[in-house]
Amino acid sequence: MASTAEICEHILTKPPQAQSTIAYNYLVPNIKGLESLVKILDSTGVPADATAETSKAATTTEVSLFAAATEAFSKANTNCSIAESLERIKPIMSLAKTKNIRVRGYVSVALGCPYEGPDVNPVKVAEITATLLELGADEVSVADTTGMGTAPRTMELMQALKAAGIANTDLALHFHDTYGQALVNTIVGLEHGVRIFDSSVGGLGGCPYSKGATGNVATEDLVHTIHSLGMHTGISLDEMSKIGGWISGELGRANDSRAGKATLARLASEKASL
Amino acid sequence: MASTAEICEHILTKPPQAQSTIAYNYLVPNIKGLESLVKILDSTGVPADATAETSKAATTTEVSLFAAATEAFSKANTNCSIAESLERIKPIMSLAKTKNIRVRGYVSVALGCPYEGPDVNPVKVAEITATLLELGADEVSVADTTGMGTAPRTMELMQALKAAGIANTDLALHFHDTYGQALVNTIVGLEHGVRIFDSSVGGLGGCPYSKGATGNVATEDLVHTIHSLGMHTGISLDEMSKIGGWISGELGRANDSRAGKATLARLASEKASL
Repeated sequence: MASTAEICEHILTKPPQAQSTIAYNYLVPNIKGLESLVKILDSTGVPADATAETSKAATTTEVSLFAAATEAFSKANTNCSIAESLERIKPIMSLAKTKNIRVRGYVSVALGCPYEGPDVNPVKVAEITATLLELGADEVSVADTTGMGTAPRTMELMQALKAAGIANTDLALHFHDTYGQALVNTIVGLEHGVRIFDSSVGGLGGCPYSKGATGNVATEDLVHTIHSLGMHTGISLDEMSKIGGWISGELGRANDSRAGKATLARLASEKASL
Repeated sequence: MASTAEICEHILTKPPQAQSTIAYNYLVPNIKGLESLVKILDSTGVPADATAETSKAATTTEVSLFAAATEAFSKANTNCSIAESLERIKPIMSLAKTKNIRVRGYVSVALGCPYEGPDVNPVKVAEITATLLELGADEVSVADTTGMGTAPRTMELMQALKAAGIANTDLALHFHDTYGQALVNTIVGLEHGVRIFDSSVGGLGGCPYSKGATGNVATEDLVHTIHSLGMHTGISLDEMSKIGGWISGELGRANDSRAGKATLARLASEKASL
């Protein structure tokens, strides 16, 4: 199997054909990880923000930096305190900035922690979010890693983020559908003006630190919900559902998207009646 | 295997031990079905509203009558027009009333029809609901059989039901989670004052007339959502999740409740760490 560096080099030098720019996002656990990425970028000569230089569709390179909303999760996930993790992020952020690499921050367990329970302090989440933005993050995704979030507590969190002076345009929300609340919480986020939501096709993914955790909310379910409210995504639910069915098959796992499965059943029945 | 009459007689004469009264609800497709039920009730001497006569917990007997919100579904499901189905319901309703049998009406495909599509007229749904109540139904469950319902269309429906003069206390809502919208739509119903919601443990069920249809929204997901809003159900989510896990195992099917699966995972991890 190819090494991470080889895969990365391949993506940069031979990007797949696509109608729009593809943003490749790399999880960077420490400064060494970013230095390796920068080395590959430099050796290929591909700029991180390729689209700024070329008119035709290409790739852009982004990195993700993680902080946690609770001390217990920070310790388990990154083996340091929240304050220490923010310190460690500083040099990574600086290097990324000098290389024009877009930085996405994450605040994990923002609505519930496997160690500390569901009552995560929303003011603390807002503080960490603000710090990440001040350090230079281009966007921060506030994540309900455990899926413990509820509508009232998502509302509280949105109010705390607003009170901390954070602009909706700097925010993304990241819900897991472990307890079936992801779409309900998405609507609370939409009502508060957030327009960026993380999801994964077919509901792929999970979290090793959260027992019984499912993946992110399925892209198909999210897209169907947003369309149902009369909003636009530019995404074809039919095509997205086909991708979800395909990748689930390739990975030999159940398709975890309700809207995806229902759409595929409708498409199959339409085809059968032709 | 025992006949329907034998099962029914067994339930009436040897009810299971329970803390509260168990309401057994029988689907009655026509007058003949009710006549058979009445014959069994008469032969056992058990009154339909047993609790009215005895102080200790026992069973009550209810029947369900179905009407559809679209002509195409009415034809496919009951082989007659909506108007004809309401005519057929009249003598059933009368007989039930003389025997003190509680009647629950249903309006199927109220938010989307497999034949006529998602745009079911909410005014028509409200008319049929009102007619069922006028004919004597004790409660009417308005059902999103196909799961096509969206938040805005559920809101429209609630407004049409209100405009038709229907009291919230006479209404139940019945959502299928086929497209993942059941909990979102439940919240719309709660906001409009409805307090009765149908569900099935583990998300059991389905609909043969609706391709790719899943069962009713899972009881565990519904209970978790209602509790998350600070409302009370009197139901233990832990115990309900265990029932969902057990019945799914007995039937050899996947547990279709997200909150149920997450709760069972939490319980297992608590047990492991004892």
